[in-house]
Amino acid sequence: MAVIKLTALLLAASVCLCSKHKSEKVPKLVNSQYGSLWPLPQSAQISATAFQLSRSSFQIVHAPKSSAGPRCYLLGEAFRRYFEYTFGYSKRLNKDRKQSGAGAEVSELQVLITSSEPQCDGFPSVSSDESYQLTVDQPTAVLTAPNVWGALRGLETFSQLVYKDEYGTLHINKSEIKDFPRFNHRGILLDSSRHFLPLKVILANLDAMAMNKYNVFHWHIVDDQSFPYQSSLFPELSKEGSYHPYTHVYTPADVKMVIEYARMRGIRVISEFDTPGHTQSWGLGQKGLLTPCYSGEKPSGTFGPVNPILNSTYDFMTQFFKEVSSVFPDAYIHLGGDEVDFSCWKSNPDIQKFMEQQGFGTDYRKLESYYIQRILDIVTGTKKGYMIWQEVFDNGVKLKPDTVVEVWMGNALEEELHNVTSAGYTTILSAPWYLDYISYGQDWQKYYKVEPLSFKGTDAQKKLVIGGEACLWGEFVDATNLTPRLWPRASAVAERLWSHKDVRDTDDAYSRLSQHRCRMVQRGIPAEPLYVGHCDYEYGGQ
Amino acid sequence: MAVIKLTALLLAASVCLCSKHKSEKVPKLVNSQYGSLWPLPQSAQISATAFQLSRSSFQIVHAPKSSAGPRCYLLGEAFRRYFEYTFGYSKRLNKDRKQSGAGAEVSELQVLITSSEPQCDGFPSVSSDESYQLTVDQPTAVLTAPNVWGALRGLETFSQLVYKDEYGTLHINKSEIKDFPRFNHRGILLDSSRHFLPLKVILANLDAMAMNKYNVFHWHIVDDQSFPYQSSLFPELSKEGSYHPYTHVYTPADVKMVIEYARMRGIRVISEFDTPGHTQSWGLGQKGLLTPCYSGEKPSGTFGPVNPILNSTYDFMTQFFKEVSSVFPDAYIHLGGDEVDFSCWKSNPDIQKFMEQQGFGTDYRKLESYYIQRILDIVTGTKKGYMIWQEVFDNGVKLKPDTVVEVWMGNALEEELHNVTSAGYTTILSAPWYLDYISYGQDWQKYYKVEPLSFKGTDAQKKLVIGGEACLWGEFVDATNLTPRLWPRASAVAERLWSHKDVRDTDDAYSRLSQHRCRMVQRGIPAEPLYVGHCDYEYGGQ
Repeated sequence: MAVIKLTALLLAASVCLCSKHKSEKVPKLVNSQYGSLWPLPQSAQISATAFQLSRSSFQIVHAPKSSAGPRCYLLGEAFRRYFEYTFGYSKRLNKDRKQSGAGAEVSELQVLITSSEPQCDGFPSVSSDESYQLTVDQPTAVLTAPNVWGALRGLETFSQLVYKDEYGTLHINKSEIKDFPRFNHRGILLDSSRHFLPLKVILANLDAMAMNKYNVFHWHIVDDQSFPYQSSLFPELSKEGSYHPYTHVYTPADVKMVIEYARMRGIRVISEFDTPGHTQSWGLGQKGLLTPCYSGEKPSGTFGPVNPILNSTYDFMTQFFKEVSSVFPDAYIHLGGDEVDFSCWKSNPDIQKFMEQQGFGTDYRKLESYYIQRILDIVTGTKKGYMIWQEVFDNGVKLKPDTVVEVWMGNALEEELHNVTSAGYTTILSAPWYLDYISYGQDWQKYYKVEPLSFKGTDAQKKLVIGGEACLWGEFVDATNLTPRLWPRASAVAERLWSHKDVRDTDDAYSRLSQHRCRMVQRGIPAEPLYVGHCDYEYGGQ
Repeated sequence: MAVIKLTALLLAASVCLCSKHKSEKVPKLVNSQYGSLWPLPQSAQISATAFQLSRSSFQIVHAPKSSAGPRCYLLGEAFRRYFEYTFGYSKRLNKDRKQSGAGAEVSELQVLITSSEPQCDGFPSVSSDESYQLTVDQPTAVLTAPNVWGALRGLETFSQLVYKDEYGTLHINKSEIKDFPRFNHRGILLDSSRHFLPLKVILANLDAMAMNKYNVFHWHIVDDQSFPYQSSLFPELSKEGSYHPYTHVYTPADVKMVIEYARMRGIRVISEFDTPGHTQSWGLGQKGLLTPCYSGEKPSGTFGPVNPILNSTYDFMTQFFKEVSSVFPDAYIHLGGDEVDFSCWKSNPDIQKFMEQQGFGTDYRKLESYYIQRILDIVTGTKKGYMIWQEVFDNGVKLKPDTVVEVWMGNALEEELHNVTSAGYTTILSAPWYLDYISYGQDWQKYYKVEPLSFKGTDAQKKLVIGGEACLWGEFVDATNLTPRLWPRASAVAERLWSHKDVRDTDDAYSRLSQHRCRMVQRGIPAEPLYVGHCDYEYGGQ
């Protein structure tokens, strides 16, 4: 079966990279046999036979035998969305492309859901089956998937197979795709505390995530700097702790909208409420929650981490996490647990006394573990699983077997993965993918080249690595620059987490990604350029 | 005279910068006595007496004795623009601010142009007088300037003095400002070749430049990658050399619009047509212009720099620069001359023969100088002055006395400044301000701390440094990310080039700049955040 040759969109001339413009390795643009597919499917056979598509007659429909039907609104919305995407994106095709099937037409994409429960009204989970199979032939293409989650991924792939020729005619080649993700947890972390992120930005990024087959939005919703989450039980938290109680908060309706928008795109929303550190903003609306720091024998007026020695702390947390667990439907909550600064605890005489009573000596990690343990028990009581940053594991806190440990420290990364998985815990990796650390040049390659399973361990250990996350912490990011800074850099991580481990050809990736980036721009996502060149359709400006 | 205390907009709580979020020095937010002024005027006395302003009655008018009147459209447009800015920006004020003048009102800003020729219809130049004096009192504030260029700067300053209190009432304090720029050439370089920049983006950045008192738009309009400048004499240049001859070009009307938009804001447009290197795209529409490279004894099919040995080259350049010099009204053209790669010239037997005939031996720098010399003569014939990159000076090309040498190489920077100025040439500095080299964190401080006159030299030498430029080369920048990447980082350079050399307090700068950045956002410029915090009015999303 011959493979198609798509022409790269960009000027491929190799140009002197002189000293003014810092020399660096730039991948070569090639005619990838996979066109603009991103992330690359596990198996794709694309023939030279091309069919046409007509905007006026083409339709996406439920297959007659599908277990999903017109009442499956999730699919109905997706059909509409992907129709728009498919007939909107105007990637042009090389003149010399063979079109042996010219004249023949694909007039229909049938979507066939095979399992008895298509999950139209459900939420995606870590064990959701996202596999699908796509057969493109004339007059009917068929997308088969066990349930809606795989169907969403397949619709994205179908839309990526369509291209325009010079005359504006849409084509798709006879193809056979069999696809499933390498890792089940493929996340993006956004931080809405250091800067407030307007709803519009969050929703646009959920769109971009779906275009890259991401399935987890890790919402680092509150932190030291602000508390934009509007709690029903404790409205003072955002009233006092947000940047502004009206313009810089997420109301219950906002949160619901984010969750539903994500669900419609097969994306889980995992909220993070990080304690006991990273909680300065909590203290503004919940008096007595944080530890009073001392300067000598007197309170200094400043506050440290959550006060771990008071019953009132745990009463509050019990109520608070009960609310959170009902607001966020996902089976997991991220509880943070990172970077606890002990200096305030050390200064406080009541804490010192408590340490003595508990026999902790001067090991404040024991106090931290004591606190975390109680929080984990509280959350377990809400029937939720939890995710935590690696310190909680490192400090020897007793964890439930289904805990997900997030490895974020770059030093001794492989050792940490080895240790977490030898202890039998599930883990996700974010250390190599802190996208807030920007640098000059094509840093997407660095993210792309990561191999999550390169650590030493048994097959059983490696199976415990369920995925990873690209993190865009918010110190230097808000609505003005978030989207172009995240995309297409996060697309590199997306392919690493979805595609086969041997998909590592940087030239091929560069060529597909350049086109994928232009497609995102065309779809309204201002993804920044990888390097010199242009798109047929450019972003119009800000 | 008491000074006012403005409250910083941002959360000033000092927060643990832990390892996940990379520790670094963050300046302290203080209550700057200068509020949100940026760049800081040379002299500003701001009293505690505050007056009100009313949107319905306030007006900006020509002073009775002004030499400019209603037919000065440049000022008329500026009055309208600054009225909008003034009554649009909603910076809130600290509660405890003294308002001893409460009740009194400034109902009018009179703009008094004192010179007999206000230059309403002229173009700004390197010797334009941008000084102004601003007296804010009730019921009338007076802005005095020799001509429109200073008036524009003073209007910006006036708008920056206005602030809102908690109830939305606008105030301005009794003030006395005397101001003028430290350097006459304060530029931004944008590159529309590596990526095409839509007109909208260029215009938005001219707005932002005016907000920062920049006065030169250095338009690096063509380069290797594409030739978007549509020439009337040589339409093939953009037809063949642009990314697309309709969607990725600047028509004569576009260029005119940019020039006029800039003029209205007191900004010069200096176009750069860089030769003999950086010209790959020229060769596509002008056959025979570039040097054919040889592989052994045969032409390899690739091309090098402009061919310096043909009369046809100089005939073309004479016509081309004649057009350019009439299209761009500024007295200067930037001729480039940087980074010439000799390998293609070396491979070409005709070039070798010419070298021999001219007695250049194997010193290809002599050939380069030969070419540049002829180009300079051609441009001199159009009555224009020229700017060039430092290599042209370094290679010993004979330059006219009024040549401006642009120093861009970071190594041996001070030595270069010393050498250029000892030779008696005017110079501008861009080496420390290559803003395309991004890095994590608050790099604005690095740009801010530069002292352009720290090199060894006499007073006469230092006077030859007429300014500098912040350069945003286009390899990784297009409409998706240009504006937030440039602002407010370029604002740091703006203050260095405008304000007194002793204005270097980083905490004070950080506090003013944070507010200035929020003001830019409010005015529609998506300037990125300096650090954690928020604006009253946030950018809505992309």
